[in-house]
Amino acid sequence: MTRGATQDVTVTGLLAEIADVGRDAVRGGYSRHVFDDADRALREWFTTRATGLGLDVVPDADGNLWAWWGAPGPDAVVTGSHLDSVPGGGALDGPLGVASALAAVARLKATGLTPARPFAVVVFAEEEGSRFGVACLGSGLLTGAVAPDRARALTDAAGTTLAEVWAANGLDPQRLGPDDRALGRIGCFVELHVEQGADLVHRGAPVALATAILAHGRWRVRAVGQGNHAGATPMGSRHDPVIVAARTVLAAREAALATPGARATVGRVTVVPGGTNVIASVAEAFLDVRAADDGTVRAVVAEIAGAVRAAGEAEGCTVEIVEESFAPAVVFDAGLRRRLAAVLGDPPAIPTGAGHDAGVLATHVPTAMLFVRNPTGVSHAPEEGAAAEDCERGVDALVRVLEELV
Amino acid sequence: MTRGATQDVTVTGLLAEIADVGRDAVRGGYSRHVFDDADRALREWFTTRATGLGLDVVPDADGNLWAWWGAPGPDAVVTGSHLDSVPGGGALDGPLGVASALAAVARLKATGLTPARPFAVVVFAEEEGSRFGVACLGSGLLTGAVAPDRARALTDAAGTTLAEVWAANGLDPQRLGPDDRALGRIGCFVELHVEQGADLVHRGAPVALATAILAHGRWRVRAVGQGNHAGATPMGSRHDPVIVAARTVLAAREAALATPGARATVGRVTVVPGGTNVIASVAEAFLDVRAADDGTVRAVVAEIAGAVRAAGEAEGCTVEIVEESFAPAVVFDAGLRRRLAAVLGDPPAIPTGAGHDAGVLATHVPTAMLFVRNPTGVSHAPEEGAAAEDCERGVDALVRVLEELV
Repeated sequence: MTRGATQDVTVTGLLAEIADVGRDAVRGGYSRHVFDDADRALREWFTTRATGLGLDVVPDADGNLWAWWGAPGPDAVVTGSHLDSVPGGGALDGPLGVASALAAVARLKATGLTPARPFAVVVFAEEEGSRFGVACLGSGLLTGAVAPDRARALTDAAGTTLAEVWAANGLDPQRLGPDDRALGRIGCFVELHVEQGADLVHRGAPVALATAILAHGRWRVRAVGQGNHAGATPMGSRHDPVIVAARTVLAAREAALATPGARATVGRVTVVPGGTNVIASVAEAFLDVRAADDGTVRAVVAEIAGAVRAAGEAEGCTVEIVEESFAPAVVFDAGLRRRLAAVLGDPPAIPTGAGHDAGVLATHVPTAMLFVRNPTGVSHAPEEGAAAEDCERGVDALVRVLEELV
Repeated sequence: MTRGATQDVTVTGLLAEIADVGRDAVRGGYSRHVFDDADRALREWFTTRATGLGLDVVPDADGNLWAWWGAPGPDAVVTGSHLDSVPGGGALDGPLGVASALAAVARLKATGLTPARPFAVVVFAEEEGSRFGVACLGSGLLTGAVAPDRARALTDAAGTTLAEVWAANGLDPQRLGPDDRALGRIGCFVELHVEQGADLVHRGAPVALATAILAHGRWRVRAVGQGNHAGATPMGSRHDPVIVAARTVLAAREAALATPGARATVGRVTVVPGGTNVIASVAEAFLDVRAADDGTVRAVVAEIAGAVRAAGEAEGCTVEIVEESFAPAVVFDAGLRRRLAAVLGDPPAIPTGAGHDAGVLATHVPTAMLFVRNPTGVSHAPEEGAAAEDCERGVDALVRVLEELV
């Protein structure tokens, strides 16, 4: 590879290459879910691009892709993010970190650098949990945070199991799960990510270091009533699970408002059978709760659950509340953060309410995150964005960080 | 056709023939929507069966099927119902009336009767409104209650227009709409239907005559907010349309409870984009409201709309409330009902909260309905049912009614 070829690889150029992959005509933005057509196209794009930079791309059994610069080895410096999105998500949540990592490699290669430590760019699978309902699935499998048996049995909206999807994509579902060898090779992990709030807009800075991630759990609230005719069934004879779902939505709002720093959201609701003239038989509300510490999340959920159970009893519906995932609060490695802050000239240091693969890895290896300013402050929606020059400042920061670490 | 062949045609036998058509593996029960695979199979079944009984089956431009005994003509006696279902509906809502009509024709033929008046069995299209959102679509088009331009532009969940579906099924969408010739031929219409409540269980009777149908409207409540990240967006910075949808559900319940005899239901909710970790950008609640008279329905909806608009304002969401259909209260023809009551030995006479094609026709021609006992009282759900002997009692009653009328 010539020095010129690597210099042509820029973060905005890389993002432009995938700008048409997985657009969602109905919701707007992008829908890229693990091993759907869009995700497969993005994996192929990453493999081509990383290979073009002279990296060796190796998939693991958990659905993640590893692109090694030189031989894989211990105490490696690893950077990367994910390529999947929420339904109708923005262009940058995930891909910005992957594209910045590739652009940083290109820049480091262009300077003639040869890493003194093993080095890899990683793409984690199903970070958003949009297909199988478990966020940070690829990193969670790798680290053992997600149990293999549970993972294999997860189903998507079409009822297809994760095991079936893995097998259809050339992965052996019996081999997925904790990979101590792969995990043991990671000396430190740095994830660059678009900011998912407007903190850097208010501070007037293009790049920040992360301090912590809120504790975060997901619960499925399922109410079962009696399906019936919307016209022929008197109000007093109803067991309508949609009433319970509505009370769940409002109880979540109320409990979070009453708890400083807490966030509770119902962003997904399913109603069965879902006919306008039919009292539903089943309604599910998917609950997302976050707060600075695990105990506060548990307390908020307990309060919501109490209200939901009372609503179920009043309506004559059975209620089931299932925890789908729980990610404890993460405080990023203070030593690594101080070291990177010194290299970067003390950028703002901010916490985040969003979960990340970096949070999953942080309980195993020193981990850091860089955030790039988002002018709208909006994320998980088409309005998510970053100025081209801020994306370049992100790559500048990542290059300096990697030079320091490798 | 031999007398034996027609005697073999029974209502339970006919229903058994279609027991596997359109089963819904996810919701339970049946999902049969206008011109989907199941509905097409049922139309073919009806055509074969009616032809086998010596009737001439003629489709009209509105998607309805007419099976004539002898030549079509004025002052015809017409009976029938519909074959489509709500999503996950029961086996009888619609098909019981169609199968009973065919069984009644078989019995009348077996007695050697030749009708003195023209006679037809009709299958109305999209009675439930499950595909295009407008209930009693086929009868509404025929009578002019549904405007042709509006009908052609209706879209299903996949975004396909009714005009496209009509054309794909051999019907000219430019020809749909009021058919004064077809309507003018109907001298009277009798629809047999499974009861959608438990009134006949309480009265210990297998068959009833209908007195009236509640006024009934459908509204789509659409709230648009700002999609965003469920973890990174503080509670105070949200414009979450799911909150507005939840308040719609509860306002509907409250307004109906406060109004004697009124019924209000939200049985269908859509949330866009619909990710657990995403504050939604759009939420829609589909509202079904019924009451004894039109004014009461309007008053209940006005009360709900006030609460919804206030919720939208509080949440910083725009709110749009669109009337999708309105069917005024129906009182069935008193003279026809007295005549049939005399023939049937004064069965119970009961009102219904459910809408029917008979209700649409009742404003144009003398119309009557027969109800058959439903042991669960449940309808629009898999639990809907009727004992075989009650189905036979229904056919007995329909035969006596038709003998009286033809």
